[in-house]
Amino acid sequence: MSSNKKRITPQSQDFSEWYQDVVREADLAEASEVRGCGIVKPYGLKIWELIKAELSKRFEADGVENVYFPIFIPIENLHAEKEHVEGFSPELAVVTHGGGEKLVNELAVRPTSEAAMYPTYAKWIQSYKDLPLRLNQWNNVVRWEKRPRPFLRWSEFLWQEGHTAFATEEEARAEVWKMLGMYRDIYEYMAIPVFMGKKSEKERFAGAVMTTTVEVMVRDGKSIQGATSHYLGTNFAKVFGVKYLGEDGKEHFAHQNSWGFSWRSIGAVIMAHGDDNGLRLPPNIAPIQVIITPIYKEETMGKILAFSRKVQSELTGIRVKIDERDGLTPGFKFNHWEAKGVPIRIEIGDKEASGGELTLFRRDLNVREKMSADNLKVKIEQLLRDIHTNLYNQATEFANTHIHRIESLDEIKDQVGYFEASWCESPESEKLLKEKFSMVSRVLPKKYEDAAPKNKKCFITGGEAKHDWYFAKSY
Amino acid sequence: MSSNKKRITPQSQDFSEWYQDVVREADLAEASEVRGCGIVKPYGLKIWELIKAELSKRFEADGVENVYFPIFIPIENLHAEKEHVEGFSPELAVVTHGGGEKLVNELAVRPTSEAAMYPTYAKWIQSYKDLPLRLNQWNNVVRWEKRPRPFLRWSEFLWQEGHTAFATEEEARAEVWKMLGMYRDIYEYMAIPVFMGKKSEKERFAGAVMTTTVEVMVRDGKSIQGATSHYLGTNFAKVFGVKYLGEDGKEHFAHQNSWGFSWRSIGAVIMAHGDDNGLRLPPNIAPIQVIITPIYKEETMGKILAFSRKVQSELTGIRVKIDERDGLTPGFKFNHWEAKGVPIRIEIGDKEASGGELTLFRRDLNVREKMSADNLKVKIEQLLRDIHTNLYNQATEFANTHIHRIESLDEIKDQVGYFEASWCESPESEKLLKEKFSMVSRVLPKKYEDAAPKNKKCFITGGEAKHDWYFAKSY
Repeated sequence: MSSNKKRITPQSQDFSEWYQDVVREADLAEASEVRGCGIVKPYGLKIWELIKAELSKRFEADGVENVYFPIFIPIENLHAEKEHVEGFSPELAVVTHGGGEKLVNELAVRPTSEAAMYPTYAKWIQSYKDLPLRLNQWNNVVRWEKRPRPFLRWSEFLWQEGHTAFATEEEARAEVWKMLGMYRDIYEYMAIPVFMGKKSEKERFAGAVMTTTVEVMVRDGKSIQGATSHYLGTNFAKVFGVKYLGEDGKEHFAHQNSWGFSWRSIGAVIMAHGDDNGLRLPPNIAPIQVIITPIYKEETMGKILAFSRKVQSELTGIRVKIDERDGLTPGFKFNHWEAKGVPIRIEIGDKEASGGELTLFRRDLNVREKMSADNLKVKIEQLLRDIHTNLYNQATEFANTHIHRIESLDEIKDQVGYFEASWCESPESEKLLKEKFSMVSRVLPKKYEDAAPKNKKCFITGGEAKHDWYFAKSY
Repeated sequence: MSSNKKRITPQSQDFSEWYQDVVREADLAEASEVRGCGIVKPYGLKIWELIKAELSKRFEADGVENVYFPIFIPIENLHAEKEHVEGFSPELAVVTHGGGEKLVNELAVRPTSEAAMYPTYAKWIQSYKDLPLRLNQWNNVVRWEKRPRPFLRWSEFLWQEGHTAFATEEEARAEVWKMLGMYRDIYEYMAIPVFMGKKSEKERFAGAVMTTTVEVMVRDGKSIQGATSHYLGTNFAKVFGVKYLGEDGKEHFAHQNSWGFSWRSIGAVIMAHGDDNGLRLPPNIAPIQVIITPIYKEETMGKILAFSRKVQSELTGIRVKIDERDGLTPGFKFNHWEAKGVPIRIEIGDKEASGGELTLFRRDLNVREKMSADNLKVKIEQLLRDIHTNLYNQATEFANTHIHRIESLDEIKDQVGYFEASWCESPESEKLLKEKFSMVSRVLPKKYEDAAPKNKKCFITGGEAKHDWYFAKSY
């Protein structure tokens, strides 16, 4: 049986190929018969379920409640908000027939649910006592993709979309940043540092007053928009009539937010942590945290399997599995679990089963370590924490050392990473940047929001710069 | 403020109206702008999440893995299995446009995923070593409904669909019954007894060789199909090429099953347990298991609220909430939580807060009880178990006393419940029954599967009877 290691293209050779190879070799997902849509396999979906469970717990602790609205939206609802429909029309899937008949009113498959939910919010919200309203949906949405990429760009994807309404702009804006903070935290849970801040006018969500983002720098230096949190102002409220009677006895429009996080986060995990041997999973979201690989001959099999099971039974509360598959070489199994990014491998041969030290392989460092078998659970739990921290530190180190300060377009070379530059923030200049360098603004970092730009002149137009921004190519 | 009790139509007056009223007054769900589709509100969705979490845990313990396939199915896939397409064509929602263009190949929104998954199963399954394959999806499906009813019949619904493949018919058939047993068990978890067994040829899933069902008798005597588990034989395997190379070196078609359980189970819970005051929730799936209602005047408010919080803090691990809403009468609050079916209410007034006994209201019996406050958690946990058992016993008693043995069509009167009769099992006779009495066979009870019919003559045709069956009107 050939080594599966060879089936992964090195990152340095072709990062896109590497990504596709890892998705396949780690058995995360594959293309489906429906162009643009993917099939997420058990190992990939389990990662999503682990992320979802954690984020869901945090939302609930924050008082957010879950709700379910229909997947179909009357097309006319989408047309009600002008910017919104312009943003999403090109990506819609449209249902024209239902129950054997042509529909009088065509339905869009939801690309996002503002236009599905807010007409109902208008009924639910009558008085200031009905506010704030903070609801969330875990569901599937469809945005037609011409150039699909696993997890990052599929026509259908799983996500959560929070939709909230407040009496005042102040409360709404405060929640935008609070939810963005939750997204930063869930990325930290995945050992990924993010760059958080505002989006430019051009990159803003269609229909929003302000979009904020957490951006993830991945190992080819490109950026992944990790999640977004939007202040919608009263744009949708005016269109759908989301009004409340205030304590002052007058009618006011509600201030609304929406915020979303999808399984493209799995794409970020793959690209932020993966190496030439495949996936490296942060322990918190690893479906298998510890893989035990027994290495035996026929005569030692019983003893070694028994010892393996003993080790497994000690590791309560840890997601641990024994690879009992027969007829595969140790090397094949090692490569297999390395490609799947399992954080710790415990190799158990005759020596280990005879009461000697255990042999551990750490996927974050790709090194073997010896460890005595006593008090194993506590030590493995500590090691999982160490691996988390180490992955986080590696990613942070990478991100911090791949930001290139530039003062003019001439300085843009093929460097890996983000470009930091002082910018005038005009949509025209961003359009130019995109055309010439396939690059857009990614984020106005929060730390620079209230700071003067380092250079008073815009690096694109030479006009007056407003802030320092990060620019990068992106997925 | 008027009593909300009056807003629920008595069951005896109009059971359908009663159901709609309870769905509204318990704040479970409402109709959406999209005809046939509903909005499930936080309280209703939480019930679904609690059911889902439990069933999901049981599937996982049984080795079933979760997967996600696209919501869209190429129409030609659906047409591949003749019975399957005949069964589902009238209910399809069809996407004809995507990404701003007319699609060359139209897509169906999945009504169920056999035709979406099995072409891929054909790729995944090559050898007997790849079997059994046991996968499940939690997702949304669409079946166009002309006469929608909350939870029970909406055009879009949430469910799980398991899809498995085995080397032999024997293994496949054994799993059909095992999964049906899991459905029986999850209904028991909801304090609902079921009638389990086979469906008739006419009521069989479109494309299946055998359909099994768990049927729930609800309080107007009608039946709800609670979940189904199908043996598909090699019908789909032949169409989609799901084949494996056996140990014998020959190619064989895989034997396949599918099994599904949806949020119509919430409809069954409402109708099996509810009374004229609203919902009665079994504790296992109650979003709030204990509601504390403080009853105070201005001068006692501080003391009573403090005591209420103390009681709440003692009930760790129980889903407990204090109704701190101001300006509502105790009576209003009592009706409110009774309509929502909260199993236990603890009423805390001045006397209780002064260290006297607690006053509890049991929703299963609609009676008040006194209880000393010491060792409260243990006693409340026991009471929740008692309430579960009592609801289960009530439902069992109802079901057992509402089966009417009949020997001929003449004996069908307007009785509430199931009719038990010896039947020839011919589709024609079932068609006649449906036309004349709006009634079909619900289930060949497992206990009667291998027993001789009580009457040798069919109660419809007078021909030779094969088994004793249950017949009923249904939702």
